[in-house]
Amino acid sequence: MQHPPDGTKPAVGPILHGGDLEAARAAFPDAPEPWVDLSTGINPWPYPLPPLEPELWTRLPAPGAERRLREAAAAAYGAPGAEHLAAAAGSQALIQLLPLLRPRGRVVVLGPTYAEHARCWALAGHAVETVPELSRTDADVVVAVNPNNPDGRVLTRDILLDLAERQHARGGWLVVDEAFVDTLPEASLCGDVRPGLVVLRSFGKFFGLAGLRLGLAVAEPGLAGHMRAAIGPWAVAGPALAVATAALRDSGWIADTRVRVADASRRLDGILTAGGLRVVGGTHLFRLADGGGGTQELYATLARGGVLVRRFEWNPKWLRFGLLRRTREEVRLHALLSDATNL
Amino acid sequence: MQHPPDGTKPAVGPILHGGDLEAARAAFPDAPEPWVDLSTGINPWPYPLPPLEPELWTRLPAPGAERRLREAAAAAYGAPGAEHLAAAAGSQALIQLLPLLRPRGRVVVLGPTYAEHARCWALAGHAVETVPELSRTDADVVVAVNPNNPDGRVLTRDILLDLAERQHARGGWLVVDEAFVDTLPEASLCGDVRPGLVVLRSFGKFFGLAGLRLGLAVAEPGLAGHMRAAIGPWAVAGPALAVATAALRDSGWIADTRVRVADASRRLDGILTAGGLRVVGGTHLFRLADGGGGTQELYATLARGGVLVRRFEWNPKWLRFGLLRRTREEVRLHALLSDATNL
Repeated sequence: MQHPPDGTKPAVGPILHGGDLEAARAAFPDAPEPWVDLSTGINPWPYPLPPLEPELWTRLPAPGAERRLREAAAAAYGAPGAEHLAAAAGSQALIQLLPLLRPRGRVVVLGPTYAEHARCWALAGHAVETVPELSRTDADVVVAVNPNNPDGRVLTRDILLDLAERQHARGGWLVVDEAFVDTLPEASLCGDVRPGLVVLRSFGKFFGLAGLRLGLAVAEPGLAGHMRAAIGPWAVAGPALAVATAALRDSGWIADTRVRVADASRRLDGILTAGGLRVVGGTHLFRLADGGGGTQELYATLARGGVLVRRFEWNPKWLRFGLLRRTREEVRLHALLSDATNL
Repeated sequence: MQHPPDGTKPAVGPILHGGDLEAARAAFPDAPEPWVDLSTGINPWPYPLPPLEPELWTRLPAPGAERRLREAAAAAYGAPGAEHLAAAAGSQALIQLLPLLRPRGRVVVLGPTYAEHARCWALAGHAVETVPELSRTDADVVVAVNPNNPDGRVLTRDILLDLAERQHARGGWLVVDEAFVDTLPEASLCGDVRPGLVVLRSFGKFFGLAGLRLGLAVAEPGLAGHMRAAIGPWAVAGPALAVATAALRDSGWIADTRVRVADASRRLDGILTAGGLRVVGGTHLFRLADGGGGTQELYATLARGGVLVRRFEWNPKWLRFGLLRRTREEVRLHALLSDATNL
């Protein structure tokens, strides 16, 4: 990240993500509208927007509003208190920031996983290695996504907390990205923050409001305060603070939504299995399926039918499916999978 | 910024800003409601919010929407093209980021000015000096706010462009924060981007939508691309992209608003002068007044009357006044100033 180039591209290029319907429309112009976008892991039943006062748009977000958001998030996440939290405009913003807060060092990412972690640490000049399991390492920073995206692998709390203490002993960090932990709250480390441990939480996925841009880091108060200073004032938009504070306080909606997405993920498994796919992992916000040798053709068949899913360059047999919101979407996916099987 | 402390505060603490009505209410609990907040330089006639599709909240902001925002901003600002721009969740986010993109060095801030520049460079470990004028310097980075906040001082384009070239010749930067240039577009350097020059633009002040969080950097394409990589995907919220793209394309509204705020700033000058204050500077979004030895008492008198203005620790004779939106607010300020004069 240091010594930015003049007129040259960054060393680490952009990553293709899910959710880009415009690109899908350009690649498959004859697909029927509207598209069904299953390419992300965003809850398709969003938290209902409360009425938004005009002042949320016109005024600078009040420091008190930012503090109340952190209080609500601490309560929802089981963190010790607001002083352990730092809020930013999306957990991606925190993923971008963390590598800039340490001297260049050696970073191990448990993967394959969400590719932005490795990109951001490498872009900032760290030496990054992706490893398939957490064997003993002397890396300065270890990054684990838990539950993992896309395979849903869950690491035990004991393993992670032990690793955090070892990282702290050498002046390092364990970064645990809990972007998809909301449907499996017992796996979260937010209640176990300690020196050396940084937990990242995403607001938009579980609450179905990814466009609002809010993510939180949970850490011991010294590091959390350091992150707040590095993020600066007014990082989260006024409307986002208002919506998210209401949503995080709404424990009834949260409980109902956990049931709803679990049901939907089971129905999705049924459709995928009936369509000849093997479900190999996931969370209650997305499912990972193995389509064997015909996976890339299946991807194209689905896209020509207006259904966008997520594929992975590093595993051509895998497709990731987000939840289906409506019965007619379930019918459409079922039909497309049946057609593909009959080809 | 590097080597974050464990359990200690950052070296450079938070700065008190305008716009915190909650703090004002706590300090002056007997003030009449509603308060009139003149403590920021935000246009009180905001751009009218267009209808916002639910997908702007629920979906990840589309890469195409971010590109269209940069195209609209490039056109509005007179920049060569979208590839010269990087967008973030507020120009403050860019002020936080820039010091992390260079190795630690020597930084000169032309000041006094907006205090976050010096805080952020110092927080990131740079050696920061605030200087009253741009004499010859061998600093790695020079920061100028133009027009300056709070005194409105405007540096000529020739001086700044010459300085940018000298900075580039030594591998350095000139950062020009044009947060308040929208009412004086002929002073902007956005059409003159060149290696070594980074221009910052704020969306929320002129468009009266500070809660939306959007700022843009304008630089040569290599550095702008490097900043986009460091900012990462989805940095600006979906609703913000939609509102700001519409606003930046609305040249009629922009032209009308320049006239409107210029009129309002002249009326404000009249009220301040009639109240016994001496207007010593400002822009068409705020005015700076010298109240002599009684300034701090005047600040308290205004606050007890429910009018919040901005004072400055480093100059106890100065108060900064934002524009008055309504006639009844003009009457209220006029009355409070008259009362204070008669004390």
